[in-house]
Amino acid sequence: MTLTASSPTAAVLIIGDEILSGRTADTNLNTIARFLQALGIDLKEARTVGDVPAQIVGALNALRAAHDYVFTTGGIGPTHDDITADCVAEAFGVPLREHPEALAILGRRYGDDFNAARRRMARVPEGGTLIANPVSDAPGFQVENVFVMAGVPKIMTAMLEDVAPRLRTGSVVHSRTLRVVGVGEGAVAATLSDAAQAERRLSFGSYPFGAGSDGEMGANLVVRGRDEALLDEAVARLKAALAEIGVQTVEV
Amino acid sequence: MTLTASSPTAAVLIIGDEILSGRTADTNLNTIARFLQALGIDLKEARTVGDVPAQIVGALNALRAAHDYVFTTGGIGPTHDDITADCVAEAFGVPLREHPEALAILGRRYGDDFNAARRRMARVPEGGTLIANPVSDAPGFQVENVFVMAGVPKIMTAMLEDVAPRLRTGSVVHSRTLRVVGVGEGAVAATLSDAAQAERRLSFGSYPFGAGSDGEMGANLVVRGRDEALLDEAVARLKAALAEIGVQTVEV
Repeated sequence: MTLTASSPTAAVLIIGDEILSGRTADTNLNTIARFLQALGIDLKEARTVGDVPAQIVGALNALRAAHDYVFTTGGIGPTHDDITADCVAEAFGVPLREHPEALAILGRRYGDDFNAARRRMARVPEGGTLIANPVSDAPGFQVENVFVMAGVPKIMTAMLEDVAPRLRTGSVVHSRTLRVVGVGEGAVAATLSDAAQAERRLSFGSYPFGAGSDGEMGANLVVRGRDEALLDEAVARLKAALAEIGVQTVEV
Repeated sequence: MTLTASSPTAAVLIIGDEILSGRTADTNLNTIARFLQALGIDLKEARTVGDVPAQIVGALNALRAAHDYVFTTGGIGPTHDDITADCVAEAFGVPLREHPEALAILGRRYGDDFNAARRRMARVPEGGTLIANPVSDAPGFQVENVFVMAGVPKIMTAMLEDVAPRLRTGSVVHSRTLRVVGVGEGAVAATLSDAAQAERRLSFGSYPFGAGSDGEMGANLVVRGRDEALLDEAVARLKAALAEIGVQTVEV
């Protein structure tokens, strides 16, 4: 898809052995993807790495150099396997320090139980600012273009509220979906390809459903773009072209 | 975690604009992670890229050089946005050719409806072998250490059956979970860290649950390793150490 030059780009870095072992199914990527979509920010790639410093630092440095924003999830709790803050500090080449505001927040939450492990959660790379955690208080943090968030989905989602106002937004990408039922996507592929060739300012995708013997078969044809008038025209033309080859569609 | 030198490593490459736009939530990574876990193959990283040739080729070449196996999902259907086969051929520097067996399979399935778009699904990089698709016939393929599979979860999962016998397996990583209820992970972090320091042949993770005000709060402490006797001893020691600081655990 052709994008306006001013659309910010982003990447997601998911950190945690539990994702790669299969113990936990990540849901944060989809939450962040939808969040960015609504802000007109183009999510370009995502990576998942284990609790391995070299992997985290390497991926973070690659992603923060290539994109306007990087969002990380996971590894900011109190236990020894929570090493994200250490790795972010290393990636930026800055010291990791106890952040006074984070210390105050955690001190209030834990009172007499504010032990050394919990104190780890106050450590922020120098120059970082806090990201509020309205669920369980322990903050995330931002260093330059990197937003470091919790892995627990409920907390991560809540942190996005504090992240949103800090982001430069782009023009939103709109989408229209034409659903084709009763024929496979191979039956509409040529028509869809012609439509894509004819209007290169939009993206045209095809997502089959119901493969196999059970249930109805078909495909969702998704057209995406920033210009809604252009989008509506292209969808109308595609719908007409499909009708010409005998394929009925429903806009969903 | 210290691994035996002979454990194969793997990476996953998820291909598709629909994942990055948030339209579709990926579930294939978790399916593949659990599949590899059962085979004793270490999944080391995953990447998600859009339908962009340079991104796909770049990620694939990085991953296949770094790991014993790479599993890709998505982009092997009949439509113009299905460009994975082209990109795999480019990554390996080989031509993309119609595979006779794939042509035969697809010809049988589609009969008179075997059009040019569907014929695209018979294209396999030179030297590739097919991966059977018992759901909707259109095959995936293997080129050297790269396994190229469909994006539709039901089809991808079915393809793993044909992939499994081709993989060198490792010794399986076992895990034990001690659940701590009623205290946050910060209360057990020091004890857990001591356990991890004392037995570096195992991995010790902590995964909190119930953060916030609703429901019970606690953490799952997960110990993982290839040696079950070692694992059982370490878990028993951890359980005893936690009891000493007044924290009860349940093995789940």
